[in-house]
Order: sequence, then structure tokens, then C-alpha cells
Amino acid sequence: MALRMSSLFVRTQKEDPVGAEVASHKLLHRAGYIRRSAPGIYTWLPLGLAVLGKIEAIVREEMALAGSQEVHFPGLLPADPYKKSGRWEAFGPDLFHLKDRRENDYILAPTHEEVFTLLVKDLYSSYKDLPLSIYQIQTKYRDEARPRAGLLRGREFIMKDAYSFDIDDAGLDASYEAMRVAYLRAFARLGLPCLPVKATPGAMGGSGTEEFIYPSEVGEDTFVKSPGGYAANVEAVTSIVPEAIPYSQSPAAHVEDTPDTPTIETLVAAANASHPRSDREWTAADTLKNVVCAVTHPDGTREIIVIGLPGDREVDLDRAAGTGMLGDGEVDLEAATAEDLAAHPELVKGYIGPGNSLDAPVLGRESPSKIRYLLDPRVVDGTRWITGANEPGRHVFDLVAGRDFTADGTIEAAQVVLGDPAPDGSGPLELARGVEIGQIFKLGRKYAESLDFKVLDQNGKATTVTMGSYGLGVTRVMACIAEEYHSENGLLWPQHLAPADVHITVAGKGEEIAQAAEKMTTELEAEGISVLLDDRNKVSPGFKFADAELIGIPTVIVVGRGLADGVVEVRDRLAGEKSDQPVAEVVPATVARVREAYAKAAAAADAAISADQNA
Amino acid sequence: MALRMSSLFVRTQKEDPVGAEVASHKLLHRAGYIRRSAPGIYTWLPLGLAVLGKIEAIVREEMALAGSQEVHFPGLLPADPYKKSGRWEAFGPDLFHLKDRRENDYILAPTHEEVFTLLVKDLYSSYKDLPLSIYQIQTKYRDEARPRAGLLRGREFIMKDAYSFDIDDAGLDASYEAMRVAYLRAFARLGLPCLPVKATPGAMGGSGTEEFIYPSEVGEDTFVKSPGGYAANVEAVTSIVPEAIPYSQSPAAHVEDTPDTPTIETLVAAANASHPRSDREWTAADTLKNVVCAVTHPDGTREIIVIGLPGDREVDLDRAAGTGMLGDGEVDLEAATAEDLAAHPELVKGYIGPGNSLDAPVLGRESPSKIRYLLDPRVVDGTRWITGANEPGRHVFDLVAGRDFTADGTIEAAQVVLGDPAPDGSGPLELARGVEIGQIFKLGRKYAESLDFKVLDQNGKATTVTMGSYGLGVTRVMACIAEEYHSENGLLWPQHLAPADVHITVAGKGEEIAQAAEKMTTELEAEGISVLLDDRNKVSPGFKFADAELIGIPTVIVVGRGLADGVVEVRDRLAGEKSDQPVAEVVPATVARVREAYAKAAAAADAAISADQNA
Repeated sequence: MALRMSSLFVRTQKEDPVGAEVASHKLLHRAGYIRRSAPGIYTWLPLGLAVLGKIEAIVREEMALAGSQEVHFPGLLPADPYKKSGRWEAFGPDLFHLKDRRENDYILAPTHEEVFTLLVKDLYSSYKDLPLSIYQIQTKYRDEARPRAGLLRGREFIMKDAYSFDIDDAGLDASYEAMRVAYLRAFARLGLPCLPVKATPGAMGGSGTEEFIYPSEVGEDTFVKSPGGYAANVEAVTSIVPEAIPYSQSPAAHVEDTPDTPTIETLVAAANASHPRSDREWTAADTLKNVVCAVTHPDGTREIIVIGLPGDREVDLDRAAGTGMLGDGEVDLEAATAEDLAAHPELVKGYIGPGNSLDAPVLGRESPSKIRYLLDPRVVDGTRWITGANEPGRHVFDLVAGRDFTADGTIEAAQVVLGDPAPDGSGPLELARGVEIGQIFKLGRKYAESLDFKVLDQNGKATTVTMGSYGLGVTRVMACIAEEYHSENGLLWPQHLAPADVHITVAGKGEEIAQAAEKMTTELEAEGISVLLDDRNKVSPGFKFADAELIGIPTVIVVGRGLADGVVEVRDRLAGEKSDQPVAEVVPATVARVREAYAKAAAAADAAISADQNA
Repeated sequence: MALRMSSLFVRTQKEDPVGAEVASHKLLHRAGYIRRSAPGIYTWLPLGLAVLGKIEAIVREEMALAGSQEVHFPGLLPADPYKKSGRWEAFGPDLFHLKDRRENDYILAPTHEEVFTLLVKDLYSSYKDLPLSIYQIQTKYRDEARPRAGLLRGREFIMKDAYSFDIDDAGLDASYEAMRVAYLRAFARLGLPCLPVKATPGAMGGSGTEEFIYPSEVGEDTFVKSPGGYAANVEAVTSIVPEAIPYSQSPAAHVEDTPDTPTIETLVAAANASHPRSDREWTAADTLKNVVCAVTHPDGTREIIVIGLPGDREVDLDRAAGTGMLGDGEVDLEAATAEDLAAHPELVKGYIGPGNSLDAPVLGRESPSKIRYLLDPRVVDGTRWITGANEPGRHVFDLVAGRDFTADGTIEAAQVVLGDPAPDGSGPLELARGVEIGQIFKLGRKYAESLDFKVLDQNGKATTVTMGSYGLGVTRVMACIAEEYHSENGLLWPQHLAPADVHITVAGKGEEIAQAAEKMTTELEAEGISVLLDDRNKVSPGFKFADAELIGIPTVIVVGRGLADGVVEVRDRLAGEKSDQPVAEVVPATVARVREAYAKAAAAADAAISADQNA
């Protein structure tokens, strides 16, 4: 049955939603696809559901091809398994939780690793049962601090989440690869450019992980890529660590008055004036900057730490927080406040340093301050630094790492900058922004261990199962498609994802025009082509055209005055073309074109896989 | 792609789940369709999802035919609209509620009247926009005190809920009727016997309402029907109220000692001995029994009331609670406890009465006790009673309603019993049990008023919209289908609802047998017939047959030793027949039979409608 604008539950809006900044948010609202119900929580109107259904169908097909079977878990879950795995704590305030009438703890599931593990544990007991891959398309809940950009970051959203169970690492590798292929195929069919980038496991735990990034300026994720094909998110980029330098020839460390050096630039200038190096000039990269930060751990405790890094680098708080080097679970990292500094008088603002010799450390767990001190990996043993002497107006020169100071560990906290070398040597890094539309994890045995899931192996020995977890943000993908496919005046869907295949506009008065449009609708539907028919009586053609542009079905047929001459106007909005076509030809031509578009989208999956394998 | 038992995520179970009492609960668990995740909360395995998908597809088709458009609301909703409508209170402890990180109140939606109203209010403003019917198939949450019987009464379940919006009562009547037809059609297509019965609106508010009852002994709802076609749930049955009787000739009330009359039987015997009536014997129906009950209102307050009814009747607490006569919202009603009675010394256990004359009432809001007193509607003015005299060992005789005592109102609190007359005169009532699988409501203007939803009418005047609400329990329907269709050994689905159309069992060793089964599978699938192929290698035919019986696909093809003679065994489990069929004929015959079953199920909808209209 055709959708009819006269009865369709949609009212296009002239105004953008309050605070909307990105096109998908504005247009999905204005075109009547979604409607905000609460911050980060949306209601789906018929047009929105139609597109969502097409996206889900493609994801389902690719999951089936990858051998994954569909199941469906509750959204409301008992908290106990999440307490066992540690994620009840690790998710922190992002977790919606509640009690039932008997005062038992429940959560609204943010992701389902624990209960998938328990279900399979419940039913399977032997290596013969494995491998297994199961998935669901399900509503997830995360109480984001800053829900934003409509469907891009919501608090209630739809995810496809899959989980694999294998007896050994080789099995996990194969399961992971099958899912990776399914993702590349699915995003290709969905018309979304996408880049698999190396990532860090974060709160999920496990070994290898990749994010699938839709490159876009509206994204919150910064990632890097090199001309040679390296791609990673900034958390996962590893710095090229120089070799340690022998320091037997290095001059001894010594403290000097450094008046009027409030910035790194002035300090460097003063150093070049008073202590010229023989080999080259001092630069900001020779100074060791020590930044005081506050870590909030999942259990709510707040820890003051100091991060030391070359003075030509800025600290990237998000990157540092995402490395997993600050503690278990998801941590928050922020610059220390004035109160934090006041509580630590040993930290002399502007002159903080690790201490002037190994014997008198000022930073580090072993020092009197007990403050954890983490270093950028570039600060290898033997490197020689100018840094604060922990006294106002004084710096220490020729302080040598390993000889004069050590730290509690390293951390990749420095902002990755344009031109940094790719870790694999494939060239200088470029920075790009994007939206994470999927992430796949080799979880390994973390969840199976915490929930004690073992099966008997070939020798009859109980063996812990190894797992993978594979998320794909279905509603977020829809927002990204809207980002990728829109015009100035509205959405502009890929043909195979539009809420209807064809938009027919009755643009003119008179029974004849209306009847011709109805006849065309019936004929198209008989061929399996879906139609949105704008049959509204008292709406001007101008308004109808504007609505059609906003709603964004790429094929528009305008039945109007041309009918007297036996023609209708066919608009191919994706190609930006329009032409008059004889009425007799328009139905078969449209059927052919729509079918071709579907076939092309399906074929895109194969092309994406060969491209990836060639790369 | 065929489902294959060798890889399908299912493990049939020998044991019933702990505490399971009904067949659907036992069998859906044992056959691997669902798995309990928490009390009243289930996970869906692949076979379960397959059947659920077929049920949902039928419901969607019938909603579309009825002109209802699909939308989708969040499960997590802001509490504010429910506070405005009063249901934040009215739902009481059945409502799951929580706070987000900003301490705002949210609920897990038990039903969506409020937010549907707000959405339409947000988009529509004129009578020209109406009528509108929109629906969703969505997860609902109710924190039932006693989740039971698997999917029959869960805490997380799937409902189809639809809402209609009209400008006037005639519009609401038409919307309601369209939905009523859709329900009758849907249940007919789903193979479920179903009876629309009159019901009471309860906490929903509004005027007319009907429940759709699947008659079954496992149901929690008692309903009544008459030979003449009357059907109602017991809450909605109204007693036939006799005409008031003139009491000028009645003897005066008088109190007597009634020793040794601890029961109504002994009291009646004593009355016939000491005070014989001239016209007939006294019976239990001449005694007025006064039952002390405690009402718990939605706001938690507890009220002691007394219900007076003929001594041959028992109080039906559920019926009385469901009438809406005890107060606004959902109330709990229970027998008064010993503590309640101790707190009211004026209530003399075994001898409670309304008082011995109009001038000295003991019960009623106007009496010194202030205890609300409600009467069975049969206690009309002029009826003459033996009842307690509020003194130990004494009763009052010839106490006449209207002359000697009055009450604060009437209540339909008496148990409806077999043989009671149907209110419409269509004969004696029979009692039956059933499961409520749907309920439709003429809500009227209650929600639109509390949320201030008005549109401009034809005269440009702001007019409150009138609404209907229409629920259908999708997961509960699946349980009922399993109740209706099963054998001793397992589920036995209607052909068109089975998780696959055909179950092929490889029952024998050897490449030839396996290959023949594979070929048959491929040929059936080419015709659009779905197959579950039991291709397991190391499982005996006996186990395979048992699993096939448990899983319940009605058409089973056994490929085994007969193959050498060119035959396979075809089992039609619904008909209870099996026969050997030549291999060459089995595919076309099966295709024809399956297609016929689908066509027959679709045709059942039309038959149901004509039957209802003839009735």
C-alpha cells in the first residue's frame, strides 16, 4: 500500500530543533523521521522506521552470511553478572540502574557480554559445540553525560551486537575475521565510506580491536591515517620510541636561576643564551613539561598524577584516558584544579620537575609526594632535559632520564600531531575526524573467566572459552547515512535505502492528473516498487516540492500540466538531473532504474572486500 | 539458508524449568525457544525469534489493513507526563522507575498513552489532521508481583499498542470498530480461538472496553458467557437488580438472642424454627452477610470498609477491586486482618450489621464508626434481612433496606456463580477461564484533558481530542498458541507459524541418504519453503525424532532406509498421519501443502469477521 501524504503521520518542520548543529539531526527532525522524547532519546515516526528497517535488513543479511544466528536478550538485566565482571563499577554513571519491587539491582543493558556468556555457558559444554556466533539487534541504554547531535550520540539507541565463542585463539581469529568482513560488506551496502582503524580495548578488555570509522567532520573521534594505509584512533597510535642513549658523556645536572621565563619559548631562548649546546640549538622538544592531572576512577576516587612529556607537545586528556594506562575500567581525566594544586604545596606551579637527582625524587610513588608520575614514551633513558627545579624561578639543566630521574611508567598522553610518523613506518600521519559506527573486539577469556565458562576440550580437559564481541551502531549508522547523503534542502537517500522507492507528486488540479498519478502508483507497486504519493488536495505544488526535497527520496515523478502533452517530469536527485518522459515509458524505466540501484548496492559488498584484501 | 541442527543455537532439554506448571512454559523452554534471564524476563533463542517474527508480521499486516501506521517510542520515558496523568501513582509498585545521572525521574513504559498523546499534540493542530491511528510493536515493562507461567505473565514483554485520535465520539466509535475487526482478524489468522468480552476500564479510565480472551484453563481471568452469546469478564458482569419492594406491610425490626448460630446454616435453621415465614422458608439468601475488607489505595493509604451481600454469596475480592467502585486508580482489596478488626471494636466478629434502625447506624460514613459501607446491588429498598445486631450472640430480624438501614453505595462484589442470569437476558451464565490476549478501550478525553491536547474544530474552536487505546500481547499470544497447539511430546505449531515450514530428518547413515536430504532441502528452498534440516552426524534417529516432536514443526520428512526403495516418510503431525511417498513426488506435494496452509490461515480472517457480524 502506497504511503500517502494526505494521511501519512508526518508534518515537516521549518525550524531546526533547538541546539541542533549537525545536518542529520536537523534534517531527520525537520523531515519528520524522528522526534525527541527526552535528551538523547527519540521516537521513530513512520518514515524513520522505514529507513531503519532497510538498514536492519542489510545488517541481518550480512550477519547470516557470516554464520551468526539471531537471538534477543532483554533490555532489563539483573545486575549480578555485571558485578561479577566488574562492569557494574567500570561503567560508572553511564549505567542506568534501578531496583525492582523486591529491591534487587537491575540495569538497562549498555552491552551484553556477560549475559551472552552465561547463556552459552548454560547450554554448551563441549568443544564440539564450538565455534558459535550469535547476535541481536536490540535497544541499548547508556546515560551519556552529553547526549548530542540527535542519533549520533543517544542515551537509548539500537545496536547490533554479536558475540563469538571459540575453543582456541585460532578459532577466535577466524571468528573475528568473519565479522570484520561482514562489517566491511554491510557498510559498503549501506553506502557509508568506512575505515577500519586500530583502537584500544578500553573498559571492554581483551587484545586486538578495531573501530570502523565513518570519516566526517561531525564525528567526535579523531583518528590518524598515513599515506601507506595505516589507520588508528589517537588512543591507539603508539609513538615511535627512540633507542636509549648512553649517557656516560652527558654533563652533570645542575640548577640555575631562570628569571623571566614564564613560557617554554622564553625558557628555550634563555637556555640558548646562557647554555648553548655544542651540537644544535635547544628547542621546546628539549624541555620536559610536567602536567598535573586528576584521574577519577570508576569507584569515584580522585587521584592526582603528573604526566611528563616533551615541551613541544600538549597533553591530550581523552587520548590518555583511553589508553587503559591510568587504571582499570573507564576513567575520567581532567586538568588539576586550583584546589588540587593547593592541596599539594610540593608542586610549584610553573616549575614542577621530577626532582634534581635520583636520590631526591619529588614525583613518583616512591617519592615523599607519593604522586604517580607517568612519562611520554619518547622520554627514554639517556635523553637530556631542561625542566622545573621545584623552586620558584629555577630550572634544572641536563637532567638525564634514567640517570637523574625515573617514573612509575609510561603513558601515551601527548597529542598526536599532523606529520608524526606512522608507527608502521608508512609515512607521516594525517589527522581526520570521524564517527565510530562499529567496533570489533577480541575479548579473549576475560568474561569467560569472570563468569567461569569452561567447556571440555578434545582431551576431556575443562578449558576456558575465548570470546569476541562485535558492535554496530544501527541508529548511529542511519545518522551517518543522513550526513553523507543530503542536499542543502533536505535528505537525499541512496536509492535502496529511501523510505519509499519513488515519490510521486500530484502537481496540478483536475481529476485527470490525480488519476494518472494513482494509475502510475498502482503499476509501480504491482512491480514491487514502493511509492510515496503526495495526493494532498489543498497544498500548492511549491510546498509539495519542498517537502519532497526535505524527505529525500531520490526519484521524484511530477505529474502535472505536462500530462496534457503525454509527459511527466522525472527527477533523479542523486544525479541532479530532470527530464520529461512519455507517460507510457515512465513506469518501466523507473522499475528498471530502481532495481538496478538495489543490485548495485548489493554488489558494492563484494567490491569492498576485494579492495580490503588488495590493501 | 536452511536452519541446520548441526549448528543451530538450540539444545533441547529433558527437564521442565523449575516451578513450571503450564505446557507453553515447559515446552518453549524444553524445545529451546526461550530461556529465563530473570523472574518474568526471557531471552529469545533463534527458534523462538522465528515464530515471534511470524506473529508480528501478521499483526503488522492487520494493523496496516485497519489504517494504522507504525511508529516506535522509547522504552525509557520521562516520568513527567505520567505524573500529569496520575498514572505515576496509579500504577503503584508495578511501575519500574529510575533516575538518570541528573536525578530526573524516568520510567520503563508499561504502556504509552501519555507520550502518544504528547507526540500527536506536538504535530497536529486541526480537525483536518484527524482521524489518526498509530501503533508500535514494542517492549513493555511491568514489575508484576507474581510473574508466572513463562511468557503468559512476564515483567518484560512485547506488546502491540495502538492509539486512535478523533475529533468526536462518532469518530472514536469508527476507530474502535476498525481495531476490533483487526483484532478478530489477527487472532483468527494466528489460529487462536478468542472471545471478545465486556470489561471494565480499571486504571485506564474511559468508557467502553472489551477484552479478547483466549479460553483456556491456564488463564488467570475468569469470565462468563451465556448460551445467547453474552460474554464478559466477572468484573464487568452486572447483577440483575430486582425492583424495589414496598415495605409498608413488613414487620418491624427486632433483635433476638441467637445462641449457637456460628454459621449462616445454623442461623437459617434457628430462624425457621423460631420465626417461621408465612410465605416460604428462610434461606441463606435472606441473611445479610457483612464482610470487613481493607482497601489499599494507589497512594498507599489503607481503608477499612464493610461490604454487605446476601449470605448465599461469597465476596470476590478481585471482582470488587476491578469494578472501579472503590476509588480512583488500581486498588488492592483484601480481607481485613485480626489487627484491622482489633482497631475497630465496634465491629463484633460474627455479628456485624448496619445497625438496628436508621436512627442508630453502626456502619457507613455518616455513622459514628465512619466506616464506608457498600452493598450488593440486590439489596434493594424493601428487601428484608436477618443480620448481625452488633452484639455477641444476637441478630436482628426483619431489618428492611431503605427503611431501617442505608449504605454509602453499591458494589458488584459478589462472586458470580454458575447459573446466574446474563444481564442481557440471554440465559444462565457459564463460567470459564481464559487468558487476556488483547484489550481495546474507548479512552475518551481523559488523557487529552490531562495533557491539554486540543485541536481546532470546523468552527475554529479549540476542542479536546477523543482517544482510543488498543493493546495486544504479542509474546503472550505466542504462549497461548503454544497452549493451543501442542502434543504430549512437544510443541505442534500451526503450519504457517512454525519456525520452519518443514523439518527434514536424516535418519540413517551413508552419503546417499545425507545427499538426498540436502537435495530435497535445496529444492524446497528454491520454492520459498523454509527448512530445518537435522543433519547431525552422531545423533541417533531416535533422538532426532524426539527433538523433532519437541520442536513441533508439523511437517516432518524422514529420509532413511526407504530411500533404497525410492521413498521417504512424510509425517503430517497436525493430522496425525504418516505415509511413504516417492522421492520424486515429495517436493511438489510438500510445496503445495505448505502453500495451502498459509492461504487457509489468511482466509480465516474473513471467516472470523463474517461469524462476528452474524452473531
